Amino acid sequence: MKVVVVVGGVGGARFLLGVKAALGLPPVGPVSDGAAHQVTALVNTGDDVWMHGLRVCPDLDTCMYTLGGGIDPARGWGLAGETWTVKEELAAYGAEPSWFGLGDRDIATHLIRSRMLRAGYPLSAVTEALCARWRPGARLLPMSDDRVETHVVVDDPDDPGQRKALHFQEWWVRYRAELPAHSIVPVGADEAAPAPGVLDAIAEADAVLFAPSNPVVSVGTVLAVPGVREALRKTEAGVVGVSPIIGGRPLRGMADACLTAIGVETSAEGVGRHYGSRQTSDEGLLDGWLVHTGEKVDVPGVAVRAVPLLMSDVDATAEMARAALELAGADVD
Amino acid sequence: MKVVVVVGGVGGARFLLGVKAALGLPPVGPVSDGAAHQVTALVNTGDDVWMHGLRVCPDLDTCMYTLGGGIDPARGWGLAGETWTVKEELAAYGAEPSWFGLGDRDIATHLIRSRMLRAGYPLSAVTEALCARWRPGARLLPMSDDRVETHVVVDDPDDPGQRKALHFQEWWVRYRAELPAHSIVPVGADEAAPAPGVLDAIAEADAVLFAPSNPVVSVGTVLAVPGVREALRKTEAGVVGVSPIIGGRPLRGMADACLTAIGVETSAEGVGRHYGSRQTSDEGLLDGWLVHTGEKVDVPGVAVRAVPLLMSDVDATAEMARAALELAGADVD
Repeated sequence: MKVVVVVGGVGGARFLLGVKAALGLPPVGPVSDGAAHQVTALVNTGDDVWMHGLRVCPDLDTCMYTLGGGIDPARGWGLAGETWTVKEELAAYGAEPSWFGLGDRDIATHLIRSRMLRAGYPLSAVTEALCARWRPGARLLPMSDDRVETHVVVDDPDDPGQRKALHFQEWWVRYRAELPAHSIVPVGADEAAPAPGVLDAIAEADAVLFAPSNPVVSVGTVLAVPGVREALRKTEAGVVGVSPIIGGRPLRGMADACLTAIGVETSAEGVGRHYGSRQTSDEGLLDGWLVHTGEKVDVPGVAVRAVPLLMSDVDATAEMARAALELAGADVD
Repeated sequence: MKVVVVVGGVGGARFLLGVKAALGLPPVGPVSDGAAHQVTALVNTGDDVWMHGLRVCPDLDTCMYTLGGGIDPARGWGLAGETWTVKEELAAYGAEPSWFGLGDRDIATHLIRSRMLRAGYPLSAVTEALCARWRPGARLLPMSDDRVETHVVVDDPDDPGQRKALHFQEWWVRYRAELPAHSIVPVGADEAAPAPGVLDAIAEADAVLFAPSNPVVSVGTVLAVPGVREALRKTEAGVVGVSPIIGGRPLRGMADACLTAIGVETSAEGVGRHYGSRQTSDEGLLDGWLVHTGEKVDVPGVAVRAVPLLMSDVDATAEMARAALELAGADVD
C-alpha cells in the first residue's frame, strides 16, 4: 500500500512514526527493500531560510532526524546530544541574527545541503543524499525544489503605524507568533512547481493523509504549490485530514495565530471546513476528517470520525494513523 | 615608524608578535590609537581554500587569532578551546574531504567570511570586519582580493605514470608534503591585483621585513602578485629577510620540499640568494638577510647578519625583530 502524508515539522514527523507503525513498519529507521507498504511525506519547505549563509530546512530535517532516530526527543527538533559552540562564536562576533538556534551537529547537515544547492543540485536530490545517512524508512519529498518562503505581515515593532513582512522564522522563533499577523503569504508559491515525484505520489497513492500539522503554514503551504490541489482532487485515493485542533486549541505550536490571520476559527470544525469537501465543493480536498474523541464536528460532505488524537507515544499515534487510513478506505488489517 | 611584514601562517604570526614587541607595542591585542608605530602584515592567501562550502584563509586566521589572543598555543593554528563536533558529523555523512580540520569555533569565522564574500565584499573588507572582534593590533592585509590558489604538481598517487595538480592544502595537510613536487604554481597570481593598501604600505614603510615563513608558498606567493616586487624594489625603506632555514633545515613546516621543487637549496644561503640583492641584481629584493647565529652565509650585494632565530618566546622573537629592523636601517631605540 502506498500512503502519502502531507506534513510540517514536529507534529508531522511524529505522525509519520505512527503511520509507519500502523503499516507494520519499524517506526524509526529503514524499512526492508521488499516491504509491502511505502510511506511518502510531502514536506513543507515554506519555513526554509538562509541563516549565516546556510540553507536551513526545519521541517525536512525534523522529519529526517525523527524517522532516522537522531532527533532530540525533549525538544522535538534538532539532534540529540547537540552542542552550540558555533552559535556562541557567531554571537561573540556580533553576527546577526542571533535568535535562531543553529546547533553544531545540525550545522553539518546545513553545510552539506548548502554546498549541494550551490553546486546546482535541486533540494529533492539534496534531501535524498542526506537521507542516505539517516535512512528514515519513508520517502521525504520537499513540496517543491523552488524557493517558497512564508512571510508574515505584522505591525512593525520598531516603527509604529507601519507594516512589515517578516520571514516566518523571525515571526515564529524571534517573536513567538506574538505579533498579530495581518496576513500570511507563501512568497514564490505561485511560480513554484511541485518537486519531482510529488504529483505522481498523489496520483498513485492508496491513501492521502494530512498530518495534524499547522493548517496554514505547514499543510497550507504544501497546498499552495500549483498542481497539488488539483492532484489531490483527482486522485482515486481517499483523502483524510487529522485535526491539529483539540478543544478549540492547537495541540502544539501556535496554529491559532495563523488561523486567525486567515480568518479561520481555531476549532476542529473550522479547520475541517477550511480544507473542505472533495465531493460537495469545487475547491475542497477531504473525504474524511479525524477529530479528537468527544468533539462534535460537522463538515458538510466529509465523513467525520472522532478518536483519541494525542500522539502521546508511537502506539497511540499508530492508532490514530490506523483510524485515518480506515477512513480513507485503506484498511491495513 | 611604519613596519611592513610579509608573512605566511604560524611562523609569520609568531614573528609579528616579536615585531610588535620590538616596537614597544603589546604583542597580543590592540594598540592605542596614538601609538607611534604601526605594523602592517601582507598576508599570503595562496593557501586559501573552499572547504564544505566555507572559505578558509589559514594564514590570515592564524595571524588574526595569534595577534588577537585566540590561538591554540600548542597547535599554533586554530582556536584555543576548540571542539570538533561539526567535523565529526560531516564524517558521519561521509562528506569529503575528511582530512581537513575544521573546528567548531573556527567555523564561525568561516561562516561570516563566506557570507560576506558571497554578498560581494572583498576579502580585505571581510578581514577588517573579522579583526573588529579580534583586534590584532596590526593591520592584516590579504596580499590580494583576487583568488590565487597555490597548486602543486605531483605524480598522481592513484594513477601511476600520470601527473596531477593538487591544491596546496591537499598536498600539505593530506599528504604532508611527502609526494615529491614537480612544480608549485600560484594559480591566478598573474591576473591578481594587490589588495587595497598593499602597495601604499610598501611605499610608505620605514622598514619591510620578510618573516621566516615559507619562501616558496608563503612569502613567494605574496611576491607573485603583480606590482609587489616592483614596489619592494622601489621603496625607500630597507628590505630585510629573516631566514626560515637553520642548519640546512626548516625550523618548522616542510619548506625543504617546496624549495626542492623550485630548484633552490635548503640553506640560509640558498634562500637568501633566491630572494636576491636589491642593489646588485635586476630582480633581487633584499638589502639585508638575517641568519641564525653561527651560520656562514654569503649573499652577494646583501648585508648578512647572524643572530639567534629560534622564536622560542616573544622576548626572543622581539630580539630577532629588533635585529632585522636595525639591519633595515630602522633603529627603534
